[in-house]
Amino acid sequence: MDPPPPLPLPPPRSYRRIILILKLLTIVFLLAALVVLATDTETIELSNKTEFIILRIHFKDMYTYRYMLGVCVIGMAYTLLQIVFSFYNIRTGKRLSNPTFDFYGDKLLSYILATGAAAGFGATSDMQSTFQRVNLLGNFFKRGYAASALVLFGFVYAALLSIFSYYALPQKV
Amino acid sequence: MDPPPPLPLPPPRSYRRIILILKLLTIVFLLAALVVLATDTETIELSNKTEFIILRIHFKDMYTYRYMLGVCVIGMAYTLLQIVFSFYNIRTGKRLSNPTFDFYGDKLLSYILATGAAAGFGATSDMQSTFQRVNLLGNFFKRGYAASALVLFGFVYAALLSIFSYYALPQKV
Repeated sequence: MDPPPPLPLPPPRSYRRIILILKLLTIVFLLAALVVLATDTETIELSNKTEFIILRIHFKDMYTYRYMLGVCVIGMAYTLLQIVFSFYNIRTGKRLSNPTFDFYGDKLLSYILATGAAAGFGATSDMQSTFQRVNLLGNFFKRGYAASALVLFGFVYAALLSIFSYYALPQKV
Repeated sequence: MDPPPPLPLPPPRSYRRIILILKLLTIVFLLAALVVLATDTETIELSNKTEFIILRIHFKDMYTYRYMLGVCVIGMAYTLLQIVFSFYNIRTGKRLSNPTFDFYGDKLLSYILATGAAAGFGATSDMQSTFQRVNLLGNFFKRGYAASALVLFGFVYAALLSIFSYYALPQKV
């Protein structure tokens, strides 16, 4: 039988601070995306000779924006948990979480955020070009782009974290 | 100065075959997505009392489908290169590529494929629900969903490969 793999060296203090900063950036950008999305609404006034209709379009009317909102909530919940782990680690030098859990969790989160940003950009670009012909919903889709860009930044930080969490894995057998 | 990290053990033959099969599956699904997308076209006949218009909608008319097509081409090119490396590795037992290049390349590819599938699903779902009200482009968007699902499968194989490529990395210092 092989001996068990050696335990990983505790990461240096500066490295743990970089990880904490990346986690804080992730949560801030996802929170900003959530606020932009949740307040994304536009009122359309349509009229012909006989009728006058007021339509209120909300983020809920787009499947993709609902998905993005879900992605932001999941991302914030997971990152908040990771921030608690980080603070504990910086204070005590001990780990509350398992490096393997972090590795797969960070990897999964970065994929989820990538799909949120991509779905947002994809749906916004095609919907905007469709409604542009009738000069409608310009601001609604501008905010949709802004939310997608914020989720994209969240993804970049999460992807960097997922590389860091690889380096925190124990030695392989 | 620390000693250099030990060289990784060559992976067993069966493991190398699984990797090759995953790479073949990735390329087959991306090729299928590319064919479904490139042939995705629908003709619309619009008429009122005075005019009769025929519109031909093609995948090129959707930004997102053009992006997906680009994602398929990039994915197939990278995976083909990796298949050549795999065959060489199985034949000779030697590596043509660097494990670190594989690790970051596989990681990047899996992110790119995730964004392709997500953008496809996002844009298709919202565009379909918009055009459904006027009973148009039903088949066009059905094929869009099919292509997105095929890219999603390609992503799953690529994500598994990116986990395997982590295990092929040399020991950490």
